[in-house]
Amino acid sequence: MKITVLGTGMVGRALAGRLAELRHDVVVGTRDVEETLGRTDSDVMGNPPYAEWQQTHQAVTLLPFAEAGSHRELIVNATNGGGSLAALEAVGAANLSGKVIIDVANPLDFSQGRPPILSVSNTDSLGEQIQRAYPEARVVKTLNTMSAHVMVDPARVPGSHGVFVAGDDPSAKSTVKSLLGELGWPDEQIIDLGGIRAARGTEMYLPLWLSLWGAVGGGDFNIVVARN
Amino acid sequence: MKITVLGTGMVGRALAGRLAELRHDVVVGTRDVEETLGRTDSDVMGNPPYAEWQQTHQAVTLLPFAEAGSHRELIVNATNGGGSLAALEAVGAANLSGKVIIDVANPLDFSQGRPPILSVSNTDSLGEQIQRAYPEARVVKTLNTMSAHVMVDPARVPGSHGVFVAGDDPSAKSTVKSLLGELGWPDEQIIDLGGIRAARGTEMYLPLWLSLWGAVGGGDFNIVVARN
Repeated sequence: MKITVLGTGMVGRALAGRLAELRHDVVVGTRDVEETLGRTDSDVMGNPPYAEWQQTHQAVTLLPFAEAGSHRELIVNATNGGGSLAALEAVGAANLSGKVIIDVANPLDFSQGRPPILSVSNTDSLGEQIQRAYPEARVVKTLNTMSAHVMVDPARVPGSHGVFVAGDDPSAKSTVKSLLGELGWPDEQIIDLGGIRAARGTEMYLPLWLSLWGAVGGGDFNIVVARN
Repeated sequence: MKITVLGTGMVGRALAGRLAELRHDVVVGTRDVEETLGRTDSDVMGNPPYAEWQQTHQAVTLLPFAEAGSHRELIVNATNGGGSLAALEAVGAANLSGKVIIDVANPLDFSQGRPPILSVSNTDSLGEQIQRAYPEARVVKTLNTMSAHVMVDPARVPGSHGVFVAGDDPSAKSTVKSLLGELGWPDEQIIDLGGIRAARGTEMYLPLWLSLWGAVGGGDFNIVVARN
């Protein structure tokens, strides 16, 4: 598929790199290509500069948002939650119309320190905001409940742990489930939560995820739904 | 132990009944004993009236909040989240001083319909509100991430699924872990999330829990933290 990944951080790189390995035609979108490539320091999470990552992922082209988003089949929103709506606006409504948007972002707000709070929650969610802003796009919230490493390599965590999908369009969810399968998520680990409103629950899980990160001592974990 | 369970709903009954079976000295607190015993209809969740439950649990005495809370060693808050602070106020600060309060409640707000939203979240939690209101009590948030049936009978769900504890007082958490052990939670299934602030995460998990309830088709499930 012709896939655009929005965002050049850890999550965007993990998804773009893996999807390119899987022989998809992948481009990455950023606000300002020159600025992104000009960075020489590691980011706050300790990730090396994008230019360094690009050297080992030359199949993946970096483009400005609007160009990255044009004539593509599927858009992955892997920007910071606080910048997601602006990034999608830069891509442009015409580029998003009819397209599947996989929304992986979490609306984390670090302005009051760590651990972060959510910039939207409880009565709304980032997934719903994106769907409302682009009613002709087909938003599927998924993969936002785990680390980037686990997203693209679920086998690194043992057991039948789960990935959630939420979205209003059944055919978009089918497309996403198939792509999740390519990333290593078997059908029985994909849990369909219903419409995009359920994005609220998966985003509001983040504070618990952050506490678990501390209790487990790192991001190499995920949750399994145990049932009879 | 001399244990008071506040709340006469499904959760209060499940905990009071099981703790009494385990030979604890259990009383249940309610706002108005006469009114609680006078109800003849099932509640909105389909639970039979309290008076009917009491017939098969005669070791458990029903008392007004203040009386139920006096001279006890441990208080379990199993009231509706929206009524928890009022219930604890009725118990009275003097009765709560120095005591362990196990807070099992969730601040669910059904005023905007179903699924409910939370009446407090993101920048605060019910657990923190209770701890702030009674700084001399020792609040431990636990068991609020599962159905009442699973709380008191974890073996009904297969696998090493987890129960979270969060609280500022280490000795109170030890007491609670030991009581969880009596309820059937082995040590390795008890996940200590740190201070009471982590109550935010376990309460904000509720919207996801409610979505999972729909996906699973009932409350007989719980989450396992899978890790390397």
